[in-house]
Amino acid sequence: VSGKTNSGNFFEDFKLGQKIQHATPRTVTLGDVALYNGLFGSRFAVQSADTFAQRIGYPRSPIDDLLVFHMVFGKTVPDISLNAVANLGYADFRFLKAVYPGDTLNAASEVIGLKENSNGKTGIVYVRSRGFDQTGATVLDYARWVMVRKRDEKAPAPGEHVPELPKVVDPAQLGAACPSLDAKTYDTELAGSPHRFGNYAKGDKIDHVVGMTVEDAEHMIATRLYQNTARVHFDHFTESKGRFGGRLIYGGHAISLARALSFNGLGNAFHIAAINGGRHVAPLTAGLTVFAWSEVLDAADVPGRSDVGALRLRTVATKDKPCDDFPYKIGNEYDPAVILDLDYWVLMPR
Amino acid sequence: VSGKTNSGNFFEDFKLGQKIQHATPRTVTLGDVALYNGLFGSRFAVQSADTFAQRIGYPRSPIDDLLVFHMVFGKTVPDISLNAVANLGYADFRFLKAVYPGDTLNAASEVIGLKENSNGKTGIVYVRSRGFDQTGATVLDYARWVMVRKRDEKAPAPGEHVPELPKVVDPAQLGAACPSLDAKTYDTELAGSPHRFGNYAKGDKIDHVVGMTVEDAEHMIATRLYQNTARVHFDHFTESKGRFGGRLIYGGHAISLARALSFNGLGNAFHIAAINGGRHVAPLTAGLTVFAWSEVLDAADVPGRSDVGALRLRTVATKDKPCDDFPYKIGNEYDPAVILDLDYWVLMPR
Amino acid sequence: VSGKTNSGNFFEDFKLGQKIQHATPRTVTLGDVALYNGLFGSRFAVQSADTFAQRIGYPRSPIDDLLVFHMVFGKTVPDISLNAVANLGYADFRFLKAVYPGDTLNAASEVIGLKENSNGKTGIVYVRSRGFDQTGATVLDYARWVMVRKRDEKAPAPGEHVPELPKVVDPAQLGAACPSLDAKTYDTELAGSPHRFGNYAKGDKIDHVVGMTVEDAEHMIATRLYQNTARVHFDHFTESKGRFGGRLIYGGHAISLARALSFNGLGNAFHIAAINGGRHVAPLTAGLTVFAWSEVLDAADVPGRSDVGALRLRTVATKDKPCDDFPYKIGNEYDPAVILDLDYWVLMPR
Repeated sequence: VSGKTNSGNFFEDFKLGQKIQHATPRTVTLGDVALYNGLFGSRFAVQSADTFAQRIGYPRSPIDDLLVFHMVFGKTVPDISLNAVANLGYADFRFLKAVYPGDTLNAASEVIGLKENSNGKTGIVYVRSRGFDQTGATVLDYARWVMVRKRDEKAPAPGEHVPELPKVVDPAQLGAACPSLDAKTYDTELAGSPHRFGNYAKGDKIDHVVGMTVEDAEHMIATRLYQNTARVHFDHFTESKGRFGGRLIYGGHAISLARALSFNGLGNAFHIAAINGGRHVAPLTAGLTVFAWSEVLDAADVPGRSDVGALRLRTVATKDKPCDDFPYKIGNEYDPAVILDLDYWVLMPR
Repeated sequence: VSGKTNSGNFFEDFKLGQKIQHATPRTVTLGDVALYNGLFGSRFAVQSADTFAQRIGYPRSPIDDLLVFHMVFGKTVPDISLNAVANLGYADFRFLKAVYPGDTLNAASEVIGLKENSNGKTGIVYVRSRGFDQTGATVLDYARWVMVRKRDEKAPAPGEHVPELPKVVDPAQLGAACPSLDAKTYDTELAGSPHRFGNYAKGDKIDHVVGMTVEDAEHMIATRLYQNTARVHFDHFTESKGRFGGRLIYGGHAISLARALSFNGLGNAFHIAAINGGRHVAPLTAGLTVFAWSEVLDAADVPGRSDVGALRLRTVATKDKPCDDFPYKIGNEYDPAVILDLDYWVLMPR
Repeated sequence: VSGKTNSGNFFEDFKLGQKIQHATPRTVTLGDVALYNGLFGSRFAVQSADTFAQRIGYPRSPIDDLLVFHMVFGKTVPDISLNAVANLGYADFRFLKAVYPGDTLNAASEVIGLKENSNGKTGIVYVRSRGFDQTGATVLDYARWVMVRKRDEKAPAPGEHVPELPKVVDPAQLGAACPSLDAKTYDTELAGSPHRFGNYAKGDKIDHVVGMTVEDAEHMIATRLYQNTARVHFDHFTESKGRFGGRLIYGGHAISLARALSFNGLGNAFHIAAINGGRHVAPLTAGLTVFAWSEVLDAADVPGRSDVGALRLRTVATKDKPCDDFPYKIGNEYDPAVILDLDYWVLMPR
């Protein structure tokens, strides 16, 4: 019997400052884009039509920001979260360079924090993960923390350090992945929404109206496309006896669904520039229908740019609950229908 | 609360002669082609192999005619049929220019007819819709009529005019999207059928034999690929309590399935040149199996062309009923298994 | 009624030495690659990233070997196995030239053996099938035998000859589809496994750990992508009353699943060079979870090559049974959970 399989890292395997080059570089292609479109039905014009993208200043349609994220995230799974109990959060998450079809992505992480839980069975691992293109340029940079099992409960904690992470990405840091646009050439009729940056104000709430049911075939195709290997998403035989009674849908799937649904009300929010924080509040399984609503948390200038403004949004996704009454929290607790609470910056043409 | 979402047009919102530029231009790619092939399994050699297409005179394999249609149709949904009760028919539907990977499609419609129904709750909207490529050339032109709800039953009818539409597209109008072919170089062995135009005669009936079951994941992936936003196709939570007991499959899905099945018997019908009329006779939901048969309604010369001839076909699709006995109508009523009755022109090499 | 549909060949239709050009040439694209990746989640770096492939000597990422196989196999179905009762085996199966996106495949077969079964109802047809690219070069060459029904039980047997086929492909025949590599530039960290050819030894057993559940939408999308027309995979209406109680999953789907799962333990086995023999031991239907394990049957030098070595592997796939105890045979009978027994050669960098 050979010990050549990857059983992933357990909590005690991590070291503060450890750097990990993740496996499987991946050339992102128009084929990936088509499949992503088929799975989520995104309609943002910049990503949909080369002509639209070129007219405002892109060389061609860029890869959807979240597809870039999923590809980078997927690479980190075998090293970071194969033995994770829960994906706890994201912070300081910035898209730094546009990715185009034909670019090849790879990823690396650094362990920036470790904290054993008081039960001695698990610990929290904080990593800063980065995605790179074939030139070595960073396309995505984010901090993430996950709760990881220990292999041996008696093993000493590998260190203790909780990093300080910003609650909000500073608007001055936004827009590196977005070329300087000629906002006058941004055709809102073709884009499908008349509302530009100036039409939104802090406190606006938008119900995205339409619901989207998820099938097992869909989330598995998506998650495999990203080469994400977390077995909980794929193995009905085991998971049907597990804590969710079936395959758990990759949390990023809900993010992409919510983003696609958000077109209805945010049609010109063509670029996710940063994620301030995100929480997968509750698990999602197949057969359930995802709805979403958003609130404008802030509207900010991007220093040095007159072409675009930044909206800070909270997008909340629910399962089997339409969002016309903006379900969020009941007291300090989330509404039981809420599955995702995402705080992020989008760019909109002025 | 912000009113920035699109709730679509209601019957009283339309005006005779109104012109609507639809949103979201879309670059059609080899990725879209692959996904379309995976969803329908089409085998027509012209669309399958660049080498085959080039040998007979195309610059490369064109995009499947129906994929072009679905992309154009999808764009019209948010403006024309978001509040539709029923998609009633098509007429004068002509493919005018071949579309290739890398072309970008957009669409516009003109309201050519309006007629309120006697119940005062709905009305019929007739539109002429056109798809354009990035050069502005028209690739597809068709009339369609849909029954649309009124927002306010007391609102006056926005006009009354029923346009005259041809029952059949004249053969002289066929073939603009098909280059002049060298029919001698059309290899029927590679194409998978020995039967050329001259082998078919009016009255021929062909059972396409094979059945294809539809899954929810499949029709949702297809319909999202086209950026078709009709929520009835996607939201199990709502539709499970609705009139079909589940998600209604986009009518165009049945057209594409029937077309792919029709290869078995019509393997050299490489191009749909026009649709004379089409009716979605009954709803289709997931788990059902689609069968199809065709009848040759006419065989016509295409004026000025010695390379191809035109067959006028009626293709009938059924659900859960094999077509060896050519189910169609029982008296004046459709056989209850029939879901699609499509009357169209295909081109075949002579 | 027209007799223009293909009802396939029955046993008595075949002749020894008969040559068949199969239909529907197919240009393989990056779209097909993306869909294949979404369906199986393969992670071999050579096929995943152009940069990785180029660094070791490929012009770009080649098409996955099994995708080439499925495309070629699919073309043979309408002529060889439309009336097959069982797909019995493969032998002398060699990949001879790398295939790249944009290449167009077609296929031809020669009948190399025929043997009627004693019941007089069926016979075994042996074919040698070859896939070709657009230059006419052979990319794949294999022998296969299938049990095919007779149309008329009274028809005389069309001949009797059982060909001699090698039990194992000679290592001297391996590697034609693999360019001469610069093995030093093969980065095992990026590839996701530290184990090179020299780290494996005859007798090694590897449990690939992760299970993958198959949905009907998935195997139908895959099988249509290959233009494989065997109706047993697609028609729930008919098959729900048939011998498997539902749609039978194309046997090649299990091969691709097992190959993708085998990455975990065989991450540098970047190329399938040959298949010595393969048996679909038991049917697979949707909802079941596939697991796999492999045994190293041999480790061989490839004559004339110092860059790569060849491992002969047996990969066994099961349904709903994890493989930590390496299920295979119980006495002379297969464990009832086993669905696939595949004996093949892979190349690994030294």
